[in-house]
Amino acid sequence: MKIIIAPDSFKGSLTSTEAAHAIACGVRDAAPHATLVEIPLADGGEGSVEAVAERLDAQIVTIDTVNPLMKKMTAKYAIAETAEGKTAIIETAAASGLNTVSRDERDIMASSTFGTGLIIADAFSRGCRNFIIGLGGSATNDAGLGILAALGYRHLDRNGKTLTPSGASLSELAHIVASRDADALRDCRFTLMCDVDNPLYGESGAAFTFAAQKGASPQQIEQLDLGLRNWSRCVTRDLGIDVADLPGAGAAGGLGAMFAAFFNAEMRSGIEMVLDLAGFDDELRDADLVITGEGHMDAQTLHGKVPMGVLRHARRAAVPVIALSGAIDHCEEFDRAGMSGVFSIQPSPVSLDEAMQRETASRNLRSTATQIMQLIKAFTCK
Amino acid sequence: MKIIIAPDSFKGSLTSTEAAHAIACGVRDAAPHATLVEIPLADGGEGSVEAVAERLDAQIVTIDTVNPLMKKMTAKYAIAETAEGKTAIIETAAASGLNTVSRDERDIMASSTFGTGLIIADAFSRGCRNFIIGLGGSATNDAGLGILAALGYRHLDRNGKTLTPSGASLSELAHIVASRDADALRDCRFTLMCDVDNPLYGESGAAFTFAAQKGASPQQIEQLDLGLRNWSRCVTRDLGIDVADLPGAGAAGGLGAMFAAFFNAEMRSGIEMVLDLAGFDDELRDADLVITGEGHMDAQTLHGKVPMGVLRHARRAAVPVIALSGAIDHCEEFDRAGMSGVFSIQPSPVSLDEAMQRETASRNLRSTATQIMQLIKAFTCK
Repeated sequence: MKIIIAPDSFKGSLTSTEAAHAIACGVRDAAPHATLVEIPLADGGEGSVEAVAERLDAQIVTIDTVNPLMKKMTAKYAIAETAEGKTAIIETAAASGLNTVSRDERDIMASSTFGTGLIIADAFSRGCRNFIIGLGGSATNDAGLGILAALGYRHLDRNGKTLTPSGASLSELAHIVASRDADALRDCRFTLMCDVDNPLYGESGAAFTFAAQKGASPQQIEQLDLGLRNWSRCVTRDLGIDVADLPGAGAAGGLGAMFAAFFNAEMRSGIEMVLDLAGFDDELRDADLVITGEGHMDAQTLHGKVPMGVLRHARRAAVPVIALSGAIDHCEEFDRAGMSGVFSIQPSPVSLDEAMQRETASRNLRSTATQIMQLIKAFTCK
Repeated sequence: MKIIIAPDSFKGSLTSTEAAHAIACGVRDAAPHATLVEIPLADGGEGSVEAVAERLDAQIVTIDTVNPLMKKMTAKYAIAETAEGKTAIIETAAASGLNTVSRDERDIMASSTFGTGLIIADAFSRGCRNFIIGLGGSATNDAGLGILAALGYRHLDRNGKTLTPSGASLSELAHIVASRDADALRDCRFTLMCDVDNPLYGESGAAFTFAAQKGASPQQIEQLDLGLRNWSRCVTRDLGIDVADLPGAGAAGGLGAMFAAFFNAEMRSGIEMVLDLAGFDDELRDADLVITGEGHMDAQTLHGKVPMGVLRHARRAAVPVIALSGAIDHCEEFDRAGMSGVFSIQPSPVSLDEAMQRETASRNLRSTATQIMQLIKAFTCK
């Protein structure tokens, strides 16, 4: 029997690697001779690098960079050898994420993706010509001014003065001066992991949809939206390209638009990309069961996140899928979607705090997996 | 596929009949064509009459009787036609149970099993000659003085004065005068459902082991133990029978000893008797799965209660057993005992109060059963 163990993280408790490991231990307790393939997953946001790095035998690189407010920090990304050559796998959240700035310090107007640009520059200097970039979880709304600046581009106002690369500068932007690496960068292949289809500006745009959760006031949102419109005008004029209405242009504070305009980036769904990188479909071919899961399974889970992506692929291959979760809503809808079972890992009434303890979650995940495997063994034909 | 659904009650939330029903609904949601046999169970204590009555197509009789403090109340018992003839199924707890007296009013010295005697007398007058009596949960320690009094026996002190039939009278007892129904009663068949093997008196006896939980003070316990010794002396002298060391003599405040001495009662394990009455082994013969469960599964469950009784019988018939529970400890030990899976019904972290709401417990039981059936369907050969 071959079992693929492919969970998302249990947020606040376990990374997807840890969750996969706990499930694998539990399965092994009941079925020591089963073939287990652990494929920790992520949806392209935080945890994606960790999730795919081990699977791809990637090198984890830790570098000095800066956070959105230009404070020094270290961040990690991965370099893997893939069919496309030397490939950097980078999360925007690593250096430009909400978690890199304390809630008190948040300042969306001053925030910049410069730190993510430093990571891209580092990977480029190490010979990476293929980039996979997860757009989830950014604290910024700078349409990539920071990234471009870190790659050697300059942003000028109408007086020819160099602008600081932040959201506040978007409305003053008049001209973008290309980096001397611009041609080499344009020859690279950029793939974005992106699960939103918002345009760059307007009422469904980056500022109006996402800036409030990054701490923007209503006035700042208006100003950022105007800035994104101005950025778009400049880019259309200088590059002859209009990316404002591209689905996903508004992802990560306009990074979708920037990567599309400057690097001809391809947008892909995060989970699809991660499943692809992990060789999920290949593993499915001779699998008998997939065990997925995530910390909380609810209505949101039904819209494109990890367990549903897993289910979509597994159903195509006619492999049954079960999910383990710390908290379940809408069980009937998972049934309708084709899950063979969604099981809670809570053995007893318990507080959320206690349930989310790392040790507790790991132990409960393990023992639930054991019970399920025992049940399957009692009924399986194999 | 034939599935036997045989849970205990989920105490404080659902009777075993309700629990079986909720599980059956859940199974049916996933497997509408499965053959389901609902066998609500009990361990011989509270809920036993309800559990077996429907299964045996028994008549439920409601009669006026009295509680341990001789206050009027109504109580139920069942009359069924079995291979042994007209059979009364009676719980000591119905009229003599802890739940029939409020905690403030409890008075073990004054407490009497007279009410249970009235039930036996009623059944006898309706022609029952076969009695199955569950001994669990009594509030009394009267060695059955009350039952005998209700059946027409008289208890006299050494001055020939009639004693009130309560625990306090045990130490004054000098002589027992037989009822005019004594011979007819002795020809009846009494079977006790009893899961303790305590002797009548001494440090493992009825008073020292059970009286404290019925509200007795240390002095009262001493006095009751002396009373039981005196009762035993009288009985041995008058009937030529010594039942003091019989395993179970100390059950239900000495009812084990009384039924053995006066009615030659047979002691049986509660769950074994209930399984027997329910025809459990017959149903097992062509079953594919048994689903059992109880509110809380812990170390106590491992010692002879409902799920383990179910497991013992099902293993003999090589039918896999899974258990559903509101709260699980010691999962590994259930595995070792041979359970194919023990599953919690809690979908999320939740308070004990909320989890124990009748509606909540029923809904969770149902949806967990559905998930398990879906999983089995994905793997079953049938």
